[in-house]
Amino acid sequence: MAILVVGSVAFDSLETPSGKRERVLGGAATHFALAASFFTDVRVVGVVGEDFLPAHEAVLTAKGVDTTGIERAPGLSFHWTGSYVKDLNAADTLATDLNVFAEFSPKIPASYEDSDYLFLANIDPVLQAQVRSQMPHVKMVAGDTMNYWIGAHRENLLKVLRELDVLLINDAEARMLSGESNGLRAAEKVMELGPKSLIVKHGEYGATAYFSARSFGDGVARRPFRSPTMPLGEVMDPTGAGDSFAGGFYGYIASQKTLTPEVFRTAMFYGSVMGSFAVEQFGTERLQKTTKAEIEERFAHLKEISHL
Amino acid sequence: MAILVVGSVAFDSLETPSGKRERVLGGAATHFALAASFFTDVRVVGVVGEDFLPAHEAVLTAKGVDTTGIERAPGLSFHWTGSYVKDLNAADTLATDLNVFAEFSPKIPASYEDSDYLFLANIDPVLQAQVRSQMPHVKMVAGDTMNYWIGAHRENLLKVLRELDVLLINDAEARMLSGESNGLRAAEKVMELGPKSLIVKHGEYGATAYFSARSFGDGVARRPFRSPTMPLGEVMDPTGAGDSFAGGFYGYIASQKTLTPEVFRTAMFYGSVMGSFAVEQFGTERLQKTTKAEIEERFAHLKEISHL
Repeated sequence: MAILVVGSVAFDSLETPSGKRERVLGGAATHFALAASFFTDVRVVGVVGEDFLPAHEAVLTAKGVDTTGIERAPGLSFHWTGSYVKDLNAADTLATDLNVFAEFSPKIPASYEDSDYLFLANIDPVLQAQVRSQMPHVKMVAGDTMNYWIGAHRENLLKVLRELDVLLINDAEARMLSGESNGLRAAEKVMELGPKSLIVKHGEYGATAYFSARSFGDGVARRPFRSPTMPLGEVMDPTGAGDSFAGGFYGYIASQKTLTPEVFRTAMFYGSVMGSFAVEQFGTERLQKTTKAEIEERFAHLKEISHL
Repeated sequence: MAILVVGSVAFDSLETPSGKRERVLGGAATHFALAASFFTDVRVVGVVGEDFLPAHEAVLTAKGVDTTGIERAPGLSFHWTGSYVKDLNAADTLATDLNVFAEFSPKIPASYEDSDYLFLANIDPVLQAQVRSQMPHVKMVAGDTMNYWIGAHRENLLKVLRELDVLLINDAEARMLSGESNGLRAAEKVMELGPKSLIVKHGEYGATAYFSARSFGDGVARRPFRSPTMPLGEVMDPTGAGDSFAGGFYGYIASQKTLTPEVFRTAMFYGSVMGSFAVEQFGTERLQKTTKAEIEERFAHLKEISHL
């Protein structure tokens, strides 16, 4: 079934230990949509400027991603400049040019209204809430956020959290949101804020899913689940790894009839697989070339390196 | 079959977010021996001072650990003072009083000579090499080291590495030893220095085993293996977590007829299990109380939270 994702479609200028790239296609919604497109239909809501050319749109449409909801506005697209030269695990933001994103007000095309799965990528929680309220009948809502919104826009974010089936954040964000340094206790506090389930990403060390009694609608509180990552000989560009994880995870869930604990666990592995492709080249280069066969091969690989 | 472990038997004075303890029984050989004792016979070679009382020795002998090789010397035992108040994942060393350990020259009792498995805990590589050369007929040698030896005693350490079947170190040590920041490439470089296999510990995120074509004597280079950790609601004292991991890992291997890839993987899980007990209370408190049934229960738990 179809996923509606709202988030940034942007250009990134990047420097990593592997090299430099200027204005490559990026943005949370872009990475998410590409990764999810291997599993299900994806529809994007976002805004771009006059620098977003047919060739950029074709990156998405070539994978069957519906771009009807990408609004064109006068001016330039959102542009992020970052460096991973000091630490591949932590982006150093050099510039954030919001451009047309500064005035973004998400509009949902009529043809998107029957989407069953909603993904609120990392944007202003006020916009996340707007989109959520326009899609009252979705089966499931998942979302992402970041330190900036947790710190300076906490009240707005809390409203969004109350509506989430799954929140995906990283270790530092979980600590910041909960005020707890212990992972398990942090997860419990975060789920008390609303999310039925929580995925905490540990970068190169994988991810942990935490469940509440509300996770699968049966009142059973299950144990956490740990998913591994692929050991990679070179990480060329970590940008979009988390969004690609989310895309693989949510795309797989949307491709299944019901959300069971087994579907959730399998989705975590697919998330890890898609994240592993994303970082192998700059921007969207690797995801554009990925095949279904490679995904299944890497899924089997991940199982092999983590199962007794 | 029996494991001979050489390493420190010591007292630790600790401060963690959970509290403070003065002069609790510790030392790498102590934690290793206790953890391994659940799986096989363990014999300790070390040195203690006059402050090491029958009650301390009884902690080991109560678990069947052979203490014949713990030499008594005039003076005080090795005493480490550390704090984890700032960061549970990184010990802040406040004082290292070597005491009797400064003049330690390992002597292997005749009754230990038929030991089939040798573990060289984290001590001066010169001493590690001495013990290794006195045990030429062992089936397998595993060992640990730390940043101090990697930096200031590299040449001596390299001699030890050439003799190792398995080296167990953490991420920072692997980077320092190899000069590589990428985990996979670092592992390959470390194994080129000698160890047939390498286990890199990621603290609360588990561990990764790397294999060479020499790992199982069949010329096959296998893929890495990732083992998870237990999500724990409280880590009271991380001291000895790595040594307990090593004890569970190596103890399980020594309890099996041959070293197969499956035995290695299972041993990683038992390592994780023993590490998870070690950190739940101060010093050796939790390992002293652990039961075989608890170990099997936690092993099953670890499988449940990591397998699809």
